[in-house]
Amino acid sequence: MFPAGVTIDPKTGAVSPNTGTYTKHLSELRSIYHDGAEFDARLARQGDAVAYTVIEYREPGADIFFGTTTMSPGRIGDEYFMTRGHFHERPDRGEIYYTQSGEGVLLMQSRQGEMRSVEMKPGVCAFIPPDWAHRSINTGEQPLIFVWCCNQDAGHDYDVIVTRGMRQIVVERSGAVAYLPNPKFAAGN
Amino acid sequence: MFPAGVTIDPKTGAVSPNTGTYTKHLSELRSIYHDGAEFDARLARQGDAVAYTVIEYREPGADIFFGTTTMSPGRIGDEYFMTRGHFHERPDRGEIYYTQSGEGVLLMQSRQGEMRSVEMKPGVCAFIPPDWAHRSINTGEQPLIFVWCCNQDAGHDYDVIVTRGMRQIVVERSGAVAYLPNPKFAAGN
Repeated sequence: MFPAGVTIDPKTGAVSPNTGTYTKHLSELRSIYHDGAEFDARLARQGDAVAYTVIEYREPGADIFFGTTTMSPGRIGDEYFMTRGHFHERPDRGEIYYTQSGEGVLLMQSRQGEMRSVEMKPGVCAFIPPDWAHRSINTGEQPLIFVWCCNQDAGHDYDVIVTRGMRQIVVERSGAVAYLPNPKFAAGN
Repeated sequence: MFPAGVTIDPKTGAVSPNTGTYTKHLSELRSIYHDGAEFDARLARQGDAVAYTVIEYREPGADIFFGTTTMSPGRIGDEYFMTRGHFHERPDRGEIYYTQSGEGVLLMQSRQGEMRSVEMKPGVCAFIPPDWAHRSINTGEQPLIFVWCCNQDAGHDYDVIVTRGMRQIVVERSGAVAYLPNPKFAAGN
């Protein structure tokens, strides 16, 4: 395993060199939005689109790794584009998100159901504690781009959030960002 | 433990809020420079100065933490200002250094004595593998500022590098950055 200098473009999210990338399209994310009819209408009207792209630099055998997430701007009705949101599989693994460009909200929910949010804007490095689910939400008009860093063994548990939702949704109200109770939230045990 | 939004100033290295800071003065670093006479002459001529400042954001009980290092520009004779350099105590812990402003060199040395360097400049995120000693060197005219992230349990082992030195020194030659064998390097077993 050798050192590397990895170039990150804060305006595009490009990572060079990188070791992997994946892209999520809107069509894969229907269940996370509160308004299914608006979702279907948007896709019928504007077609599918890239919701976000993740690019990573990972050295197998190292502890930590890092990369970028680049989120398209947009809304489904009043609800801003967002990531699926997830807990880590390991309850002792946190993460940091360092915003490079754009603006958004990092919405977090503890295993006990407490909610917190951190404003995402250039210069803000968000600390996500272990065992807090996290979802990024692009509330701006430009791509929201952040650098993340965490342990490779953190793992992803998407099921809880995809199945139950988070307790809050983040929507546009008269041009401002508003937090509302999620009408689709399903409390667990 | 709760989430936090931590503001990082890429031009000053300020971290707000933060949980700790320390400053190294030149006078604490005499042994790492190859020219002791030049070191003494500089301190006699210009007095002591801040060599670098480290500011951290650490949540006890979390796995990873992060912060900034801000390095003054300058030289002792031909040798650029640098950090002490260290291995981590845990041989399975790496680190990332994401340069925010200034320019420099990240000099790394594996436990087996291999050398690598990564250019430090804004946009370059350096990957430091586990068990590679690392030293940052400010080769520019401005402060060199980077964000670092690693596991809290990585620990610091300064002794090996302070005692033996690294195999190479980084010096100015006719206005350019040059890598030379370290005349003070003491090979270990």
